[in-house]
Amino acid sequence: MTANVAERVQHEGLRAKIMPAEQAAEFIRHGMNVGISGFTGAGYPKAVPAALAQLMEAAHARGEDFTIGMLTGASTADDCDGVLARANGIAFRTPFQSDPTLRNQINAGAVDYVDVHLSHLEQQVRFGFYGKMDVAVIEVTGILSDGRVIPSMGVGTNNQWLKSADKIILEVNSRQNILLEGMHDIHPDIGVPPHRKPIALTAPDERIGSPYFDVDLSKVVAVVVTDLPDRNTKFAEPDDNSKRIAAQIIDFFSHEVKMGRLPSNLLPLQSGVGNVANAVLAGLQDGPFDNLTGYTEVLQDGMLDLILSGKMLSASATALSFSPDALDRFNNNIEKLRSKIILRPQEVTNHPEVSRRLGVIAMNAMIECDIYGNVNSTHVMGTKMMNGIGGSGDFARNAFLSFFVTPSVAKGGAISCIVPMVSHHDHTEHDVMVLVTEQGLADLRGKSPRQRAKLIIENCAHPDYRDMLKDYYARAEKAGGLHTPHLLNEALSWHQRFVETGDMRVK
Amino acid sequence: MTANVAERVQHEGLRAKIMPAEQAAEFIRHGMNVGISGFTGAGYPKAVPAALAQLMEAAHARGEDFTIGMLTGASTADDCDGVLARANGIAFRTPFQSDPTLRNQINAGAVDYVDVHLSHLEQQVRFGFYGKMDVAVIEVTGILSDGRVIPSMGVGTNNQWLKSADKIILEVNSRQNILLEGMHDIHPDIGVPPHRKPIALTAPDERIGSPYFDVDLSKVVAVVVTDLPDRNTKFAEPDDNSKRIAAQIIDFFSHEVKMGRLPSNLLPLQSGVGNVANAVLAGLQDGPFDNLTGYTEVLQDGMLDLILSGKMLSASATALSFSPDALDRFNNNIEKLRSKIILRPQEVTNHPEVSRRLGVIAMNAMIECDIYGNVNSTHVMGTKMMNGIGGSGDFARNAFLSFFVTPSVAKGGAISCIVPMVSHHDHTEHDVMVLVTEQGLADLRGKSPRQRAKLIIENCAHPDYRDMLKDYYARAEKAGGLHTPHLLNEALSWHQRFVETGDMRVK
Repeated sequence: MTANVAERVQHEGLRAKIMPAEQAAEFIRHGMNVGISGFTGAGYPKAVPAALAQLMEAAHARGEDFTIGMLTGASTADDCDGVLARANGIAFRTPFQSDPTLRNQINAGAVDYVDVHLSHLEQQVRFGFYGKMDVAVIEVTGILSDGRVIPSMGVGTNNQWLKSADKIILEVNSRQNILLEGMHDIHPDIGVPPHRKPIALTAPDERIGSPYFDVDLSKVVAVVVTDLPDRNTKFAEPDDNSKRIAAQIIDFFSHEVKMGRLPSNLLPLQSGVGNVANAVLAGLQDGPFDNLTGYTEVLQDGMLDLILSGKMLSASATALSFSPDALDRFNNNIEKLRSKIILRPQEVTNHPEVSRRLGVIAMNAMIECDIYGNVNSTHVMGTKMMNGIGGSGDFARNAFLSFFVTPSVAKGGAISCIVPMVSHHDHTEHDVMVLVTEQGLADLRGKSPRQRAKLIIENCAHPDYRDMLKDYYARAEKAGGLHTPHLLNEALSWHQRFVETGDMRVK
Repeated sequence: MTANVAERVQHEGLRAKIMPAEQAAEFIRHGMNVGISGFTGAGYPKAVPAALAQLMEAAHARGEDFTIGMLTGASTADDCDGVLARANGIAFRTPFQSDPTLRNQINAGAVDYVDVHLSHLEQQVRFGFYGKMDVAVIEVTGILSDGRVIPSMGVGTNNQWLKSADKIILEVNSRQNILLEGMHDIHPDIGVPPHRKPIALTAPDERIGSPYFDVDLSKVVAVVVTDLPDRNTKFAEPDDNSKRIAAQIIDFFSHEVKMGRLPSNLLPLQSGVGNVANAVLAGLQDGPFDNLTGYTEVLQDGMLDLILSGKMLSASATALSFSPDALDRFNNNIEKLRSKIILRPQEVTNHPEVSRRLGVIAMNAMIECDIYGNVNSTHVMGTKMMNGIGGSGDFARNAFLSFFVTPSVAKGGAISCIVPMVSHHDHTEHDVMVLVTEQGLADLRGKSPRQRAKLIIENCAHPDYRDMLKDYYARAEKAGGLHTPHLLNEALSWHQRFVETGDMRVK
């Protein structure tokens, strides 16, 4: 046993359960429901999935079935979702994924994927809607001598999987900074009705739980020691479109502050993942707002840098997902950051009770929106799943202000991201307040569908598509009109044209 | 002054402000935002709207503009929405309506109607998203000598309108039972972020506020005394379809109790308005469940009778909307009911914080659903607004169990209520757990889109349409498949066919 292992696994009983990943993976059998840690490429197990995939492949070679139901916090990485998908080992998957192989299997109908609001999953497992949880495989930073467990770079659904599963496999990752200890706030129990109590959070920086997972040690069947990095995807530098979107959101904030509708330090910011979201946060670095706060799902480079610069006082999230450079900045400043970043279970970060109370400003990317303000976050051309709705619905529905952002066109102009009718609905007109593209911003608050259509076409659509959208709307209004004018035989024709010709524009 | 008026308006200063409705209506001018009481035909003002409509018609006859922005709790009645719509006096309307004249104006694009979640409206007015509130016109049951105000048959948004409006007109309706005093629970203030606190409710029968509106009496410009009844629409007797839907839901409850997923007294019931919802509650009268509770929006005949029979212990709602017979039963038993029924502001009854905490069982009607579990609650053939989303989204998203119910066909079979793709989306696949028609029940929990399609077609579709749906799904799967198989050029063709031929069936 190395000094490192001794430091990370201080509990003697659990030290005795240290074993190779190959041996630990044997606890997982065909047909089991497995709760796996991981959120946006952070804090997922790095050794057991590969070992499990080998067992699956061996079983398949013998002509035996070996698949699992896989429940996580959100997406993991190639060495977790990817390796299991390539082994054809996933029969059921929820609530979110972003792996190319798995995505193909989902779209082929080979994997049953259930795309749920991230705030729903833990409670629905508790309610018994997903059946029994057999095994939990959870990456952790360390185990104290009294058996308390230090979470890793994310909390996600881990607390629930540890409580629900019959058997627990802990992956202790010594690569994760031991100074993560104390950053987490594990709410003891949201419970099941009719015995639930209010969640006491009234500000993003409050702590209402314990820094540790409280694990029933008798359920721990294996401890696996690893030293491998998280996914740590590099961000693209913000491009011009992202910068334009960011600038408009920041102008909008200034206007709302001036009108007395927002405090001068805004309200807690929620930001979806990706380059545009990151650009908005980068834009705030030079903006006029100070003493910002964050109440978000994944904390990425942009929010980290706002905290490091002093622009943001504190942030609450369920996971930390950094580029390699940002991870270095995080680790180099972790002593200072420990009091400013709080990591919570995703059923707390994403809970409608808390986000509505705090009045978050929700900013999320989308695939497309339509002229009436409906938003598609998940399906390309109405049929192909990309990743999942994630927490966007949890936040958008309950936000003080809900923004959805996208460049106005995709695929070099062949796709308009503003369409007559979205090909899949994830967020309805009732939940979408502000749409932003690089072309402009449409403030839909208090607007009827006809008013919205004019604003969205005029402000957000790309010039190449503006006349086509105006023509659609004018003909829909003339043909029958009514509250939400549509031509039912044309509403999805832009998508159909793209499927057939590779271009939404009429040639 | 009659003895009745003396009893109902005990405050001397406000007694001095008693005036005819015609005079009170003069406080309302063109372009004003007017907050009006009323929820599902209960507790709306009965005299001032008619007087206001006369002023509007006179102005229009003189060639002058006279329209208002009209904000309520939900629907009112002919002598409120109806009379104002016939006077062409409504320019803007939110959040819900069910008046035929107004509906036509909305669908003609003559009235800007914004269809919002009922839990959103009060806070968004407070946030300043709807501009200034000029006048509140609120029906009340009485005014005490110290100026405290006894609410009427509903609370709805009244508390907010009284706080937000510059001027207040109170309609004191002596027809409303004076023993309503004490049934209301007016939460003092949900406030605006970042200074909001948890809503302390942990059970439907708890009280966390005052039985009275706390009104700034200096804003009261007029008191109008009336004696007119609420809308009090008669319910149809449950038909066979409604009874079949009800029976299946009750069977489902029994199964969930047996599986240990529901307590034997179930969880707080939320029931949408209408005959099917009423039939479900009527079915529970003879069901095996006792000590039921209700946490709903509108309390109607079915829930009243469950309380009167002792099957239900208590219920929380924002309004009481009864048939004439049920109103008699209510008034005859009001002494007993006063401790069992609690009326709250709609931002409390519909608040996601409370409904998720309590774990309500949400049962709402729909216009149509599709084979993937998306639900349309508002638009006929994708374009024509019926009433609005109301509170269905507030409850469905946050429910322990969310049911949507409809007969499988409408218009004598010419319309299938199960379609390839809904023509308007109010509730997405992420929020819909169980679909029920008279044909059967589809339990969608934990199911992928392809699994859902099979269940919904097999269990819920009418036999006349089952093969058509199977054919659509099979061809969509074959053509391109993917996560949510669709034929984009056919997805809305059933609706288009109905528009063109009056029948969704191919002749």
